[in-house]
Amino acid sequence: MQHYTHINDLENLQEAVQEAITLKQEPLQFEQLGKGKTICLLFFNNSLRTRLSTQKAAQNLGMHTIVMNFGSEGWQLEYGDGVIMNQNKSEHVKEAAKVISQYCDIVAIRAFASLTNKEKDKQEEVLNNFIKYATIPVVNMESSVGHPLQALADAITLEEHKTSHKPKVVLSWAPHSKALPHAVANSFVQMMQLQDANFVITHPEGYELDPKITKNIPIEYNQQKAFENADFIYTKNWSSFNDYGKVLSQDKNWMITSKKMKETNNAKFMHCLPVRRNVVVADEVLDSKNSLTIEQANNRTFAAQIVLKKILNKLFS
Amino acid sequence: MQHYTHINDLENLQEAVQEAITLKQEPLQFEQLGKGKTICLLFFNNSLRTRLSTQKAAQNLGMHTIVMNFGSEGWQLEYGDGVIMNQNKSEHVKEAAKVISQYCDIVAIRAFASLTNKEKDKQEEVLNNFIKYATIPVVNMESSVGHPLQALADAITLEEHKTSHKPKVVLSWAPHSKALPHAVANSFVQMMQLQDANFVITHPEGYELDPKITKNIPIEYNQQKAFENADFIYTKNWSSFNDYGKVLSQDKNWMITSKKMKETNNAKFMHCLPVRRNVVVADEVLDSKNSLTIEQANNRTFAAQIVLKKILNKLFS
Amino acid sequence: MQHYTHINDLENLQEAVQEAITLKQEPLQFEQLGKGKTICLLFFNNSLRTRLSTQKAAQNLGMHTIVMNFGSEGWQLEYGDGVIMNQNKSEHVKEAAKVISQYCDIVAIRAFASLTNKEKDKQEEVLNNFIKYATIPVVNMESSVGHPLQALADAITLEEHKTSHKPKVVLSWAPHSKALPHAVANSFVQMMQLQDANFVITHPEGYELDPKITKNIPIEYNQQKAFENADFIYTKNWSSFNDYGKVLSQDKNWMITSKKMKETNNAKFMHCLPVRRNVVVADEVLDSKNSLTIEQANNRTFAAQIVLKKILNKLFS
Repeated sequence: MQHYTHINDLENLQEAVQEAITLKQEPLQFEQLGKGKTICLLFFNNSLRTRLSTQKAAQNLGMHTIVMNFGSEGWQLEYGDGVIMNQNKSEHVKEAAKVISQYCDIVAIRAFASLTNKEKDKQEEVLNNFIKYATIPVVNMESSVGHPLQALADAITLEEHKTSHKPKVVLSWAPHSKALPHAVANSFVQMMQLQDANFVITHPEGYELDPKITKNIPIEYNQQKAFENADFIYTKNWSSFNDYGKVLSQDKNWMITSKKMKETNNAKFMHCLPVRRNVVVADEVLDSKNSLTIEQANNRTFAAQIVLKKILNKLFS
Repeated sequence: MQHYTHINDLENLQEAVQEAITLKQEPLQFEQLGKGKTICLLFFNNSLRTRLSTQKAAQNLGMHTIVMNFGSEGWQLEYGDGVIMNQNKSEHVKEAAKVISQYCDIVAIRAFASLTNKEKDKQEEVLNNFIKYATIPVVNMESSVGHPLQALADAITLEEHKTSHKPKVVLSWAPHSKALPHAVANSFVQMMQLQDANFVITHPEGYELDPKITKNIPIEYNQQKAFENADFIYTKNWSSFNDYGKVLSQDKNWMITSKKMKETNNAKFMHCLPVRRNVVVADEVLDSKNSLTIEQANNRTFAAQIVLKKILNKLFS
Repeated sequence: MQHYTHINDLENLQEAVQEAITLKQEPLQFEQLGKGKTICLLFFNNSLRTRLSTQKAAQNLGMHTIVMNFGSEGWQLEYGDGVIMNQNKSEHVKEAAKVISQYCDIVAIRAFASLTNKEKDKQEEVLNNFIKYATIPVVNMESSVGHPLQALADAITLEEHKTSHKPKVVLSWAPHSKALPHAVANSFVQMMQLQDANFVITHPEGYELDPKITKNIPIEYNQQKAFENADFIYTKNWSSFNDYGKVLSQDKNWMITSKKMKETNNAKFMHCLPVRRNVVVADEVLDSKNSLTIEQANNRTFAAQIVLKKILNKLFS
């Protein structure tokens, strides 16, 4: 594996999930692999889980870690080709990406969607320009379109907790007061397309995700119906994709409650965190035994570690 | 020792001080102890000494360190129970504390007093919520009520420099233009209550510290009288506790000068730093041979190292 | 070598350059040298190359690295002697420098020129106060007057790419919309004064650098004439030194273009980065084979590593 920007960069998801589950038993077993290698984590946006778990994963592999909050610590980047840079951008991504490649062996990047410019967001400007100009492997720590480290952690968590061969998994939109990106939902969908599962998406009308991503996955606008016989409820808010970045509904009836969870097949509750309690999901659900949210967060370490291990293996091959 | 939030978390202060003094001779003697372990330092407030010395202590023990400025790099935390999180807080401390516990073996937290809400400050909301929800040991790097790493460093410094079995130690308030927290003074008082010393507190009327902390320690409102025969002058500004967070006096007559120091028993001068020169203390005192301030700062490393060592020993036992 | 604040702190530039070129072949060959030692990088200003390359260099030598953004993470520093600190400065550099010296073995500092106060900038207040009060070696990561790590990296790059014994090297001013410091140009000039080269400076009238630094180096106000037979074009914008910190010209005719490069002896193009494309230099030049900018950035690691190695050797001697 060269870059990890999409769940499909894994040659075989099921194998990667099994590797991660094995690794989790003994996380330091490859601590010699990354010795003398450096990963640079570039944050263009805030982060808790991604920040800590990716550092932890790299350290488990014996790597040096350098963390940089690019916005406040570096220079504002220009991404356009041929631009006369006489405004407020001090450095072009061409130089930044090439320069960082001199100091590090892997670069990981977090740069959220603007939610104001659909075309720019679809182009994943920051991530793809780093891929274009960096001469080292690039890892996506959440781009404007996807969050494949989260999706791999979710796949690990699903595998650990599924009780039937082909579980019913529901991705349910839930209300939120702010406009949120589509990255987590997109990557979850793309990961589920590689799973043997009965997968349904439920959300209010107008909240359809990019149809190029959801393809033929069934959408059920009736949340109650979607929840019937569900084994996993994966919840996430996102803003409208069609009416790009808009909050069309804050309908409290879409919040996940224990009453709704009772209508499932004793489903496990999943969310990538951070989550707004009693807006997205009721305390009673998040604090129940069926909540897998903390375990999802825990699996972020092993997801990142498998990804970094595959990249290091390729670098050394 | 499980958590270190208060000087009393040390089973035996005198033994810990002796251990630290021994460790100081050979700081790397336990560099294998923390191998493969990670400490996460969470800063909700600025820091110089605490930031550097705690990292240094952890590195001396062979630990990985992850530093996070929570306010600017993470998400705004909600602490209330049952709150409908539809305002500006993105994550609940319940999740944050549990999630950080997945990635780290110890978490250290700095969260100052607000000085606007006495009841909230007394509850040490940030620290105690992390203790409540984290599943790993928690270290107090200064909370709204105490700064026990500073107090331990002060105990080490006192032990190194005392010349009599039962020295006279004076905690003297000094003027300052800003409202400052009580944490350092509180923890110094609590540490002194475990010492065989003649301990006096001096401050203008209205600056009484929390009587639940000072208990029966004598308060002398006449600074000159308090200084008589003193072996150590420990200086610190704090805002009013009764008239919570207010600056009642900026009386320059309370500044520590060499004239005042001459009225002591050739006392050593102590301050936790940072200190405002010629407001809290005159240059002549701070720059004199009798000033122990830099040595106090130096001992922060060994205080932190003893604390982390005891926590690691417990984790492995 | 005790401190590294100026290119002249190297006893012998040519030897240092050769050492760096050798080290570059096997960067980890001294990874035991810094074991158990800590470098603290203090940033009072933004940084990309310096931030990453200095960390990388220290890690290559086996050192621990502690990075601190002093402005946002620490306390505002006072530098004046005898000041009554009742304004917005919380800590004096006297304490800060001494305290940091307790925790670290080397301190590296980046503090740019204000460009508003010529006398203060000439005094290199931050750097020189750290040298005065710290008790550990100090490394200049760009001060108000110089950037000697950049200059050493430039010397390495020149050595690697020169094809004649005595190349013609031109330092050319180029336009920029913002007022920029003189540090890079100053240190490049000082480094060139130690080289066997035909060295010329070209800039519009009014952009003379400090004559105490440029001394008898020829200044050619006609850029076209300066470029004739040049082997290296080193480009940099700086603001006026005489009319201190002012932007006197943004004349686009001074931008480096391929047409101008054709008038040289197939010269290599150099710039310290970050660079504003199509303002300072045209895309066509920066993206040409003759551009050495990325290699200059790469050599920052080995420049820093040689400097840190020399300091460590001295510490252990």
